[in-house]
Amino acid sequence: MKLYHVIESQQFDRGLLEEVLFPLAREMERIVEEGGSNILAGKRMISCFYERSGRTRAAFEIAMDMLGGKVVFSTEHASEFSGGTEGEILEDTIRFLCRFRPDVIVLRYHEEDGAKTASEFSSVPIINAGDRTGQHPTRALIDLYTIQQRLGKIDGLSIAMVGDLSRGRTARSLSYLLGKFSDVRIFFISPESAKMRDDIKEYLARHNIVFQEGNDLREIAPRVDVIYQTQTKRPRALLLERYGQAKGFYVVDQEVLDLMKKDAIVMHPLPRGDEITFDVDADQRAVYLREQADSSLVIPMALLKMILA
Amino acid sequence: MKLYHVIESQQFDRGLLEEVLFPLAREMERIVEEGGSNILAGKRMISCFYERSGRTRAAFEIAMDMLGGKVVFSTEHASEFSGGTEGEILEDTIRFLCRFRPDVIVLRYHEEDGAKTASEFSSVPIINAGDRTGQHPTRALIDLYTIQQRLGKIDGLSIAMVGDLSRGRTARSLSYLLGKFSDVRIFFISPESAKMRDDIKEYLARHNIVFQEGNDLREIAPRVDVIYQTQTKRPRALLLERYGQAKGFYVVDQEVLDLMKKDAIVMHPLPRGDEITFDVDADQRAVYLREQADSSLVIPMALLKMILA
Amino acid sequence: MKLYHVIESQQFDRGLLEEVLFPLAREMERIVEEGGSNILAGKRMISCFYERSGRTRAAFEIAMDMLGGKVVFSTEHASEFSGGTEGEILEDTIRFLCRFRPDVIVLRYHEEDGAKTASEFSSVPIINAGDRTGQHPTRALIDLYTIQQRLGKIDGLSIAMVGDLSRGRTARSLSYLLGKFSDVRIFFISPESAKMRDDIKEYLARHNIVFQEGNDLREIAPRVDVIYQTQTKRPRALLLERYGQAKGFYVVDQEVLDLMKKDAIVMHPLPRGDEITFDVDADQRAVYLREQADSSLVIPMALLKMILA
Repeated sequence: MKLYHVIESQQFDRGLLEEVLFPLAREMERIVEEGGSNILAGKRMISCFYERSGRTRAAFEIAMDMLGGKVVFSTEHASEFSGGTEGEILEDTIRFLCRFRPDVIVLRYHEEDGAKTASEFSSVPIINAGDRTGQHPTRALIDLYTIQQRLGKIDGLSIAMVGDLSRGRTARSLSYLLGKFSDVRIFFISPESAKMRDDIKEYLARHNIVFQEGNDLREIAPRVDVIYQTQTKRPRALLLERYGQAKGFYVVDQEVLDLMKKDAIVMHPLPRGDEITFDVDADQRAVYLREQADSSLVIPMALLKMILA
Repeated sequence: MKLYHVIESQQFDRGLLEEVLFPLAREMERIVEEGGSNILAGKRMISCFYERSGRTRAAFEIAMDMLGGKVVFSTEHASEFSGGTEGEILEDTIRFLCRFRPDVIVLRYHEEDGAKTASEFSSVPIINAGDRTGQHPTRALIDLYTIQQRLGKIDGLSIAMVGDLSRGRTARSLSYLLGKFSDVRIFFISPESAKMRDDIKEYLARHNIVFQEGNDLREIAPRVDVIYQTQTKRPRALLLERYGQAKGFYVVDQEVLDLMKKDAIVMHPLPRGDEITFDVDADQRAVYLREQADSSLVIPMALLKMILA
Repeated sequence: MKLYHVIESQQFDRGLLEEVLFPLAREMERIVEEGGSNILAGKRMISCFYERSGRTRAAFEIAMDMLGGKVVFSTEHASEFSGGTEGEILEDTIRFLCRFRPDVIVLRYHEEDGAKTASEFSSVPIINAGDRTGQHPTRALIDLYTIQQRLGKIDGLSIAMVGDLSRGRTARSLSYLLGKFSDVRIFFISPESAKMRDDIKEYLARHNIVFQEGNDLREIAPRVDVIYQTQTKRPRALLLERYGQAKGFYVVDQEVLDLMKKDAIVMHPLPRGDEITFDVDADQRAVYLREQADSSLVIPMALLKMILA
């Protein structure tokens, strides 16, 4: 099973996930344990980021190294391909870079559908490392794989997504992927002003995923297998104020932990703000700085292997 | 034939170009086809950029990798060597970096003659990757090689340079190199306000290169072998306004293509603004995203090999 | 003798310096002469810089390469791990990066005690590459090693530290290390407004290091073995004005050179401003662009070998 461009999470169907990507990710975990491999020796990656990135660029560049491939050029200022003018079109940059013979281009673009546009003009595979308000497919794959690894399955799980759901692309992307599984139940826990948007809810309805909305995590905590906490962007002062005294309703803390099932997990795409208190970190159910971080490396490795090996 | 510093296009005479650099660039094309080489194994390059760069930094870093060498340090913020003060002089930075034992330093500086100054204090070869309003020698070599490869010769060609010729360093640098060949005829096509400056015209006159000025590309298009379109910087609102309705006079579009010879070529140093319409891209005469981009890699490779192998 | 985190210069006692680090640094000089080594083959470094850096990042990344190790990820914008919010805590970033299996993280943080905090949460060694007003331990080790190499000893030396001593962390860090040696005499030469702070003076007193304050370098120059000139930050207009006509008192120039002992040395941590005139550079006593720069590479190499080999 060869993969070419990785543009959006929708392109991964259940078979591709369960029969190809996840087994490959498990193989990658072994490779990481063994200190790396050479299966991508001689392969060249270009990191072409139009925005700065911490986690994602680190993950792909280290993934490439882990597999013996090379990052031959890396920039977080790809807009410089335009020489500071607004003139350069993504299409020209991608076509130009392809002449330098990379085997894959990892692209973060600052506008929606950047990766899709790029893929139309590229002669080599494009991996979408996020386009601002659009997709960030590897994120959702990382999250789904983490759930699968810790809980052994996706079907039948109950999952609470918590926080600012209207804008967070991570909860949105994960919802798309969950729609491919059976008997999943989702609880959207958010303030009134930050509810999950209708497009996702309609999508879930079409895929027979039961969802329910609420505004107190503590009510739901005992019933779920996964609490997927999302990032509350600090500048959103308005939102926070609306949170007001209700803030406790959306924070994972020791009280919430005590309510949770013994084998449930707490996830967070990072970076974390106040929405998970530090005393949660030591609990074995907190996977965000453990298994979920591990997945952040092995999923890019698996994708690179699928594309390049 | 060993090369040491690469500071300005003037240092390349016809013999060096035709008998050394171009054959070497053709060898580099074969190496690229074959997926790379190890002729620079163990060699170390430092990318020392005082300004951000897309294309040029990518080209040199990927060129180094293609030849088996290593980029051991890369910065686009070399002014940080001054710790944020204005105190640091280029001389100190270069002398300091030389103690780290690079085999070559690729330098982009933000002031004219940076590379020349650096070369005076460096104990290793310096390659000029552009100093703001001064030279960008590799650019002109890339362009000249592209013409040679597509048209088989330089002597006797007619070349139209189009656009903002007063400030564009690419057209200026290329003119210098064309001055070394015979029977070349240049048409400078620009608005009155952006004409090629006198220093270049005097240089060409001294080298018996016939040139002619005009302001309508369509008049000249049927007579030339090369249209060398240049970048129209967007912020130059004044210029654009002066362009006014005359804008069509300087744009390469389907109409211009239809007027051109069947074996002529359209070049552009990139990034492109509005000055070449997208419908031109598919025409085989448009080389800017094909052969000219390829040259952007093989000329740096050839220079690195000349210097380091 | 294995080293783990490198957080502050205090952790290096005299034995560690003289019996382990310095001999290792001399071995590293041989390796540099020989063009590198493979003793760190397979080892992975992450450069995690929260502030831009020239010299220090270059030194560690090139040091890693010299020893055959790899820089698998390098960023000067590590604050992007917070996605642009202020939310991310250093602790989360370090814990996350550790899951990517680096063998060492070189960290520059923008607040005091960053490296110390990081080391508490890291599962791999942290090397402090500077935290703003706090420590920059490698700097002091580089300086001390340079003195040892050129003068053959530390004990019994007379050292003048010159300039803005109140804020310069380099003079402060070096003073800490000098406190571990015997019969060292320090002259602090600075304007009244920029005197060495009391904490250092008390530390020296406790360690039986004789120090003396003054404000005219020329008076002291004949008596010292080392002039350690420090950086005068240009924006410090106030200070400079206070310098006023007294400026000559703190500048190393030909006049000062003429007063110095024949086998004394002039040091500077770089970048240099006006505080050392250019005519000093050619004098063999000026080590700042020679031996001191060499030490900037071999000390990081020695630390990496101590930690990783």
